[in-house]
Amino acid sequence: MPAPATADTPCQEYEKVLTAAQAAAPALAAMTLTERAGLLRAVAGALRAQADELVPMADADSSLGVPRLTGEVERTAGQLEMFAEAVEEGSWLEAIIDRAGPDLRRMLIPLGPVAVFGASNFPFAFGLAGGDTAAALAAGCPVVAKAHPAQPRLSDAYARVVVDALHAAGAPEGTFAVVHGMENGRKLVTDARIAAVAFTGSTAGGRALADLAAARPSPIPFYGELGSLNPVFVTREAARVRGKEIAVGFLASMSLGAGQFCTKPGVLFVPAGYGLEDLIAAEAATAPMRLLHEGIGTAFRAEAARLAAHPAVRPLSVPEQDAADESVVRPVLVGTTVTELARSSGPLLVECFGPFALVVTYTDDAELPAAVDLLEGNLTATVHGEPSGDPVAPALLRTLTARAGRVIWNGWPTGVTVGWAQHHGGPYPATTSVHTSVGVTAMRRFLRPVAYQSVPDAVLPPELRDANDLGIPRRVDGALTAASLTAPR
Amino acid sequence: MPAPATADTPCQEYEKVLTAAQAAAPALAAMTLTERAGLLRAVAGALRAQADELVPMADADSSLGVPRLTGEVERTAGQLEMFAEAVEEGSWLEAIIDRAGPDLRRMLIPLGPVAVFGASNFPFAFGLAGGDTAAALAAGCPVVAKAHPAQPRLSDAYARVVVDALHAAGAPEGTFAVVHGMENGRKLVTDARIAAVAFTGSTAGGRALADLAAARPSPIPFYGELGSLNPVFVTREAARVRGKEIAVGFLASMSLGAGQFCTKPGVLFVPAGYGLEDLIAAEAATAPMRLLHEGIGTAFRAEAARLAAHPAVRPLSVPEQDAADESVVRPVLVGTTVTELARSSGPLLVECFGPFALVVTYTDDAELPAAVDLLEGNLTATVHGEPSGDPVAPALLRTLTARAGRVIWNGWPTGVTVGWAQHHGGPYPATTSVHTSVGVTAMRRFLRPVAYQSVPDAVLPPELRDANDLGIPRRVDGALTAASLTAPR
Repeated sequence: MPAPATADTPCQEYEKVLTAAQAAAPALAAMTLTERAGLLRAVAGALRAQADELVPMADADSSLGVPRLTGEVERTAGQLEMFAEAVEEGSWLEAIIDRAGPDLRRMLIPLGPVAVFGASNFPFAFGLAGGDTAAALAAGCPVVAKAHPAQPRLSDAYARVVVDALHAAGAPEGTFAVVHGMENGRKLVTDARIAAVAFTGSTAGGRALADLAAARPSPIPFYGELGSLNPVFVTREAARVRGKEIAVGFLASMSLGAGQFCTKPGVLFVPAGYGLEDLIAAEAATAPMRLLHEGIGTAFRAEAARLAAHPAVRPLSVPEQDAADESVVRPVLVGTTVTELARSSGPLLVECFGPFALVVTYTDDAELPAAVDLLEGNLTATVHGEPSGDPVAPALLRTLTARAGRVIWNGWPTGVTVGWAQHHGGPYPATTSVHTSVGVTAMRRFLRPVAYQSVPDAVLPPELRDANDLGIPRRVDGALTAASLTAPR
Repeated sequence: MPAPATADTPCQEYEKVLTAAQAAAPALAAMTLTERAGLLRAVAGALRAQADELVPMADADSSLGVPRLTGEVERTAGQLEMFAEAVEEGSWLEAIIDRAGPDLRRMLIPLGPVAVFGASNFPFAFGLAGGDTAAALAAGCPVVAKAHPAQPRLSDAYARVVVDALHAAGAPEGTFAVVHGMENGRKLVTDARIAAVAFTGSTAGGRALADLAAARPSPIPFYGELGSLNPVFVTREAARVRGKEIAVGFLASMSLGAGQFCTKPGVLFVPAGYGLEDLIAAEAATAPMRLLHEGIGTAFRAEAARLAAHPAVRPLSVPEQDAADESVVRPVLVGTTVTELARSSGPLLVECFGPFALVVTYTDDAELPAAVDLLEGNLTATVHGEPSGDPVAPALLRTLTARAGRVIWNGWPTGVTVGWAQHHGGPYPATTSVHTSVGVTAMRRFLRPVAYQSVPDAVLPPELRDANDLGIPRRVDGALTAASLTAPR
């Protein structure tokens, strides 16, 4: 069933939304940390309370299924609560006080209204009130979210839950709103009232918007999470000891969520002569899987067919695709060698969204550094090695940190925990900044420092006053402390 | 005497420099924190030891005078030592360990080779081994500095001191180098081996390079410190109580270093009817001042004349400029009103590098928010108010944080202390990022996070190992600690 079309937000309504977001910015920034945390908890509570209404709409828009989507609502609510806790803890303010020269006190303050472009593969966790929105609200920034065109049923209902929860919790009007339409998306990125953009999606779409943001009279930060191949390297020792386990694990990870994860392992490097290609060919699932929507299905079929027909590859598992429904596809796996890859013309190392992967064979460990050099930036890179007698593995892991934001040992990249230490980002095109889009530190994207010089205590923000009533960690005269200042100024 | 021309770095030499910088990156990153701090201290020591040789060259290139330049060498050395101390302290690594889910450990790692474009107004402190270079080296990034064309005598000698000191202290070859020529500057910004750019200079020049950085196939961060007006607001109460003191302080600050500070107060807002314009007109210095070089003198004369002839302004102090030497100029001060400013066409609120300032009169406190709205982003904004009975002042200060990176109470913006709490940055065009270019936190610009998932202790970088032999502050399972981990993993 094709999704019903949603009308673009009309110009007058767009103006109202942007004016309200701009007006909300100082009011939201002026709320106490406790009040701001309360807003995040209110949204979390509302999402949980209305999951029964929202999940079927998300399923109708995405075919992801009720169990997975129910789990995703919980993850989204948990993420909001994590940020609430972090807001109150206060170390993200990076408060610093120096009293040796002129009294100088620095902290981070909100940037202003943020435009959020969510992804369709996680309708909740990376959607309208997903990680980017949670991080922006936690930082004290109003959010104008661009609705994903593939989620016409879910978007307005999801937005309404967020808007109502914020309103009930005392947020300024205009703290959150949604707009529809591709043209409105471009307008947002160039709108003088927008202070930053967060985007999750394709490299082509993200780059086009990033270029718009950079070309503004007053450029703004564009935080894009774009494409990633998430390479996995298997050492000779690991292939010898547990080749079958690795082959099975890889197939499970590359087809998880029908291969529609930004952390899907899209390329696997294996040593020749250990039978891993054959194992993968034999174990590969060929049953049909439903992709998010027809557009993704059509794009997958075209790209997977192009890659399978590339002169440098041979088929490992290339089942016939069914003609009936474009959004239903079967996994595709092809093989090549490091040598072929290095001399092939035409892109082979590109993200193909959906259940596709490339298995690359190396014949000599000495080929590995050259293989790493062929890679662009990635969200993740994984090494499968053995704990002892396998010196190749640690060296590979270290080399791969130059190409990825998260390096994984003997695991799989799919599955991104949300916490303090997470980093979901990497060298371009994985992301367009030196910041993460998941985890507590994602807040840093929507903040900028301000230093107060010789400002009287009563005029300072509470976070920087002598008393430190909020008990936040601060660096005072060089040393970290959560204490109040008693020494005379 | 015109400065001798310096030849552009030839293509072959440029290639050698970039290849060496790229090769140095992993070796520099692999040095221990103590070793890296040692490099910074070695450069600091060499600068002090060779100040007697370098200062006269800097003076010949800048006319800034031996006492000021001698102080600047000390400031530059002190800055390098501050970063050395910070490197060892380790909180800038933002080390985080989460063990509740899969073992996840995050820290910041160096971005790679950084191109540094220094400014000519502080030949040492913002020059080849100034704040940007010190921050990049502290972050573990090699630096390729673009020599300023106005400093042909100083540049190679200064670079040689840095290169020799780094070599003697055991830095990898290629850790620091200098290139000459405008075309080589553009090449640096688009060079695939360069991972970030730091720039201090004009808005026009900086924006052109920022656009190049954003248009690369793989865009890189461009940290530009461009133009700033540094507005100063005087409340009615402050004008009443200490108008004369403020007028004199303003004139001293706007003409300090012949007005060639990026923090020069270029616009002063004063209440009508307190005689401040007349005081300023009467007290303004008219004696000639020597600018950095002839090009700046010519640009100053043209821009000051354009602004003095603007139909919305009236002269406060507009002395005749001497014809003999273009680089010698007399301070220019003109006046207008908030009303005139708001309705004037043609730019009036623009940075004019040199001893020029605009004095803007307001007749009603209600005009102040509109006046703030006329401002673009600034490095600093200052309020002169009275400690009691002056509610306008705190409100103004809060409003001005939206337009500046450092807000100052009853002081002057010239003079930027180097420490933990400093923020030298602000909304565009003050800077092109949400980071500072001065102070310890300037290091963050040249770092990116990496998360290590389930990586064995021995394979982790020392900063993230259980033992924490380095004793750096880390966030472990949510709590800040410098302790080692003893709990079982």
